[in-house]
Amino acid sequence: MSNTPSSGLAPLSQAKRTQPFKTTSFKTMPFKTIGLIGRLGSDKVVDSLQRLVSYLVAHDYRVLVEDRTATALPNHGLPEASRRMLGELCDLVIVVGGDGSLLGAARTLCLSGTLMLGVNRGRLGFLTDISPDELESRVGEVLAGEFEVEERFLLDAVLYRNGKAVGSGVALNEVVVHPGKAVRMIEFELFIDGQFVYSQRSDGLIIATPTGSTAYALSGGGPIMHPKLDVVTLVPMFPHTLSSRPIVIDAASEIRVHIGETNQTYPHISCDGQTRAVAKPDDVLVIQRKPERVQLVHPIGHNFYEVLRSKLGWSHRLGD
Amino acid sequence: MSNTPSSGLAPLSQAKRTQPFKTTSFKTMPFKTIGLIGRLGSDKVVDSLQRLVSYLVAHDYRVLVEDRTATALPNHGLPEASRRMLGELCDLVIVVGGDGSLLGAARTLCLSGTLMLGVNRGRLGFLTDISPDELESRVGEVLAGEFEVEERFLLDAVLYRNGKAVGSGVALNEVVVHPGKAVRMIEFELFIDGQFVYSQRSDGLIIATPTGSTAYALSGGGPIMHPKLDVVTLVPMFPHTLSSRPIVIDAASEIRVHIGETNQTYPHISCDGQTRAVAKPDDVLVIQRKPERVQLVHPIGHNFYEVLRSKLGWSHRLGD
Amino acid sequence: MSNTPSSGLAPLSQAKRTQPFKTTSFKTMPFKTIGLIGRLGSDKVVDSLQRLVSYLVAHDYRVLVEDRTATALPNHGLPEASRRMLGELCDLVIVVGGDGSLLGAARTLCLSGTLMLGVNRGRLGFLTDISPDELESRVGEVLAGEFEVEERFLLDAVLYRNGKAVGSGVALNEVVVHPGKAVRMIEFELFIDGQFVYSQRSDGLIIATPTGSTAYALSGGGPIMHPKLDVVTLVPMFPHTLSSRPIVIDAASEIRVHIGETNQTYPHISCDGQTRAVAKPDDVLVIQRKPERVQLVHPIGHNFYEVLRSKLGWSHRLGD
Amino acid sequence: MSNTPSSGLAPLSQAKRTQPFKTTSFKTMPFKTIGLIGRLGSDKVVDSLQRLVSYLVAHDYRVLVEDRTATALPNHGLPEASRRMLGELCDLVIVVGGDGSLLGAARTLCLSGTLMLGVNRGRLGFLTDISPDELESRVGEVLAGEFEVEERFLLDAVLYRNGKAVGSGVALNEVVVHPGKAVRMIEFELFIDGQFVYSQRSDGLIIATPTGSTAYALSGGGPIMHPKLDVVTLVPMFPHTLSSRPIVIDAASEIRVHIGETNQTYPHISCDGQTRAVAKPDDVLVIQRKPERVQLVHPIGHNFYEVLRSKLGWSHRLGD
Repeated sequence: MSNTPSSGLAPLSQAKRTQPFKTTSFKTMPFKTIGLIGRLGSDKVVDSLQRLVSYLVAHDYRVLVEDRTATALPNHGLPEASRRMLGELCDLVIVVGGDGSLLGAARTLCLSGTLMLGVNRGRLGFLTDISPDELESRVGEVLAGEFEVEERFLLDAVLYRNGKAVGSGVALNEVVVHPGKAVRMIEFELFIDGQFVYSQRSDGLIIATPTGSTAYALSGGGPIMHPKLDVVTLVPMFPHTLSSRPIVIDAASEIRVHIGETNQTYPHISCDGQTRAVAKPDDVLVIQRKPERVQLVHPIGHNFYEVLRSKLGWSHRLGD
Repeated sequence: MSNTPSSGLAPLSQAKRTQPFKTTSFKTMPFKTIGLIGRLGSDKVVDSLQRLVSYLVAHDYRVLVEDRTATALPNHGLPEASRRMLGELCDLVIVVGGDGSLLGAARTLCLSGTLMLGVNRGRLGFLTDISPDELESRVGEVLAGEFEVEERFLLDAVLYRNGKAVGSGVALNEVVVHPGKAVRMIEFELFIDGQFVYSQRSDGLIIATPTGSTAYALSGGGPIMHPKLDVVTLVPMFPHTLSSRPIVIDAASEIRVHIGETNQTYPHISCDGQTRAVAKPDDVLVIQRKPERVQLVHPIGHNFYEVLRSKLGWSHRLGD
Repeated sequence: MSNTPSSGLAPLSQAKRTQPFKTTSFKTMPFKTIGLIGRLGSDKVVDSLQRLVSYLVAHDYRVLVEDRTATALPNHGLPEASRRMLGELCDLVIVVGGDGSLLGAARTLCLSGTLMLGVNRGRLGFLTDISPDELESRVGEVLAGEFEVEERFLLDAVLYRNGKAVGSGVALNEVVVHPGKAVRMIEFELFIDGQFVYSQRSDGLIIATPTGSTAYALSGGGPIMHPKLDVVTLVPMFPHTLSSRPIVIDAASEIRVHIGETNQTYPHISCDGQTRAVAKPDDVLVIQRKPERVQLVHPIGHNFYEVLRSKLGWSHRLGD
Repeated sequence: MSNTPSSGLAPLSQAKRTQPFKTTSFKTMPFKTIGLIGRLGSDKVVDSLQRLVSYLVAHDYRVLVEDRTATALPNHGLPEASRRMLGELCDLVIVVGGDGSLLGAARTLCLSGTLMLGVNRGRLGFLTDISPDELESRVGEVLAGEFEVEERFLLDAVLYRNGKAVGSGVALNEVVVHPGKAVRMIEFELFIDGQFVYSQRSDGLIIATPTGSTAYALSGGGPIMHPKLDVVTLVPMFPHTLSSRPIVIDAASEIRVHIGETNQTYPHISCDGQTRAVAKPDDVLVIQRKPERVQLVHPIGHNFYEVLRSKLGWSHRLGD
């Protein structure tokens, strides 16, 4: 087992604060057990999954299919397992779908530190960079040991009421505090590392990781942050005070949002777009970097700025 | 009756397209019957209302109190009436509270074209520009005929399902189409005067009047629009397409928002912050300028830019 | 002369306040004399000009070439004239180039109210909407009387020193007050219709027409304004006060920018990107709508929102 | 000498990557030689300088005055020295003026790693946090060893032509590439760590440190970045491509701006607001973090967020 990526990643983890990017070139075949997860309800995804099964079985890999994904693959004849079990048993999990599908899987698979590879449905994603039309060749490269591992951190959000945790969530993109319904302002106080920052009346607050900086936070006016940075951005949503601006802080900071006592709405706490808790006046939301990180696999040569240009329609080289 | 403001306003209405501002200086006492509306739950408001009652009764005005407001004024001994009846019976209605209180009253009182005067609770409002500490003197000026009438238009929003109206609302500030709950994008197509503008995935759309341009739309990045303009601004909320920008169009335009057929949320339609209808996929929201306008009374010398400077903390004259 | 556009435009001018768009369908051939202006230094432009000459001469139009443009058309054998003379002599002037070329021609041709038609160099422009690949067919339609005339207003900027005019310019897009060089803030006071608005420290101020609202002002965060509106937007450039926002006002307003007395830079006044005057401390810049308007010709069916979608990469209809 | 701050700082420098903030409490008097620098042309500054001289001389400190500053202090009777010599000779340099004065001194004093303390002219600065009205008491605390040292990094900008350096500058706030004059777009290509990011047409590019994130970059829409972060933000100025957004990257990155070969303007390179070089087409500007850092001294309890609230007018605690 000494040459498997999971054991190989242990020292990587130690170094993660200073060197989140790591290019690894294995001399021997690094993977034995591959897990498959796919977004439901898409013919394109089913097609990619079936091609992956054929390819992997033909190349003598042990293949496990996530139990929910299996419902879309009749007669696949492969062992099934829950997401969490996939994480325990697999050296690599391939997620077929959009960035949203990978976000969902990542929140579970980060716990076991399992390597993850994203396959998109034809449109380049920030997290799913392999296209169906290059599926076998690119996956082949990765299986041959030609890949880079990129770590992405997540956020732990815990809601406290009278000092007791009453709800929690995990986010790879962002935690959002928002009114929950209607166009209603919420009032809260923000503290960073115990220091009072401001009280704010707004539509809410986005707390985004670098991974999330190209998602919802970007629509809200937040900056793009390079994925290797250990920083978090706080983006006020439609703030009542016009001088409120996005703030970038150390990801190691403890962020505390104290819901106003006289608040008329019950703010919702959502993680990566899903409501995880509903706050009452005087509740306190605490957000911290999760100790575990997502281990994202890219084919060699993956380039963040190239993805940005493609996704945001930025200009190519002069003269092109 | 020939010297009452309501008859005086008839010709004004004719001229409103070209000259929304009108300074009127009456030679004779213009008002006989005054209505009072106050925001509930505020001691400051009750105090101002009681001072107004004393002042008006002492000066022989006929005073009517809105029935809900009356619950905060024990033993006032004055006739009570609904908002709508106040509009029919009064020459002038004084609203005590914040801009929100005046918004609420305006949606009803615009129907009768009744003149409205706003009294704030100590902090200058965009619509409520008389402060409690100058209550009697400023109201006295207005009652003596020294005032300006400013017209503000409103928006009619009607939601259609299979060609049938299923909900509607009136807004002085803005109509908002938003997901209703959670952080969920909505999809819709926008048409202006029958011309397709764009399809959009976003948190929603704000359709704001000049009056509303200094309220919610401003937090969302919309421009400030001078209150006398007959224009409307469409402000996309956290648009997925980064090149989406606020658009200013003629207020006489018909705005049509076609809710996407595959939309996963049921978008809410709110007017001035209150939900008026919930849309289903394929519904069509039609927004048009309301024929009736709000008749806002200001003491002579009211200055829009002065209010802006005060509210937004803009700089005063160089050297001050 | 009764069927020429210039006489036809006289009544149009009367109606311009209320109906800036005008669809005209002539029963007889409306044009006799056509002027040609082209951007220098582009082979594509020369090609389009030569095709236009062939087409127009073959169809018995009298063709005049702007003198500067003529230098790029050796042996054309056609009469030449200055821009101003073209305006006097032609029923229609065709400008080949980008929006910038049309801006330049428009500042002169507005004086004579001459109809203008824009031909681009392959990329759709906001003002130049005929593409080279449909040159003859689209120009043919226009010459046959199938066109719309759209009026656009311009701004007159005059710089006063001690009450005396010391410089001036005309802008179809925008007037900009800026430091001229280096990254230096300027200080000024803004007055609208004699009312003090604010004093500001910033990189400058953009005063844009609806035509200019999709140009420089848009990069600076200004709103898109429908071309038919008679409004102007004031966009602060990198304002020191974060609550400064674009303001939309009536185009009939007089805008006065009083350069700060203690200003350390000599602000430049530019119109459509070209410096027209350099201000000294205590100078006053006065900006007003120009009485004359540009008469822009479009093939029937020209759609402002379609151009926006194309230029800004906005989404097409859902399902496309 | 082992207990002086300058020797104490040597190990600090080693640790700077991971712990830029450092609270130091000296048991013995840490300073012997104090330098004074003041902004010229301000009576308030002269008054503060004279009070400082009196206080420091009375407490037996050796005091040196910067030679330029000395011109404003007739008959001071103290030794004078250049900025650079102050850095070599002093344990602490006190700068009296605004943030701009401290920026200027910091670019020189960073070379010797000299501790710097900022005194403002009555208005709180981001870098100058001691007010004249608490001058002696706060300076006294610092001299008694009660202070915090905060490190701020700077940027080195070098302009290359045909591979040869032709100009350079140092910035504590920001490097700006801009057209130099007039409202003219510039074209350039951006590379980060050798990776192509985008080509851009815009008014320019701001490359800001966390220190500069609350200055010019903030007016341009950049995020606020906590001063302890080792990151840099790239803010496009009025970009032609509307989807261009601020990007936050590792401060250890090499930033390369390749001026477009067909550029019509000669872009200026400015550092902290002062032009340092003028580029020609095809020049390359390289920006990197400077090895030396500014050593900023604050009285104990200095709070970045408190300064932000005060400077930006953010709201105080709810209920205040």
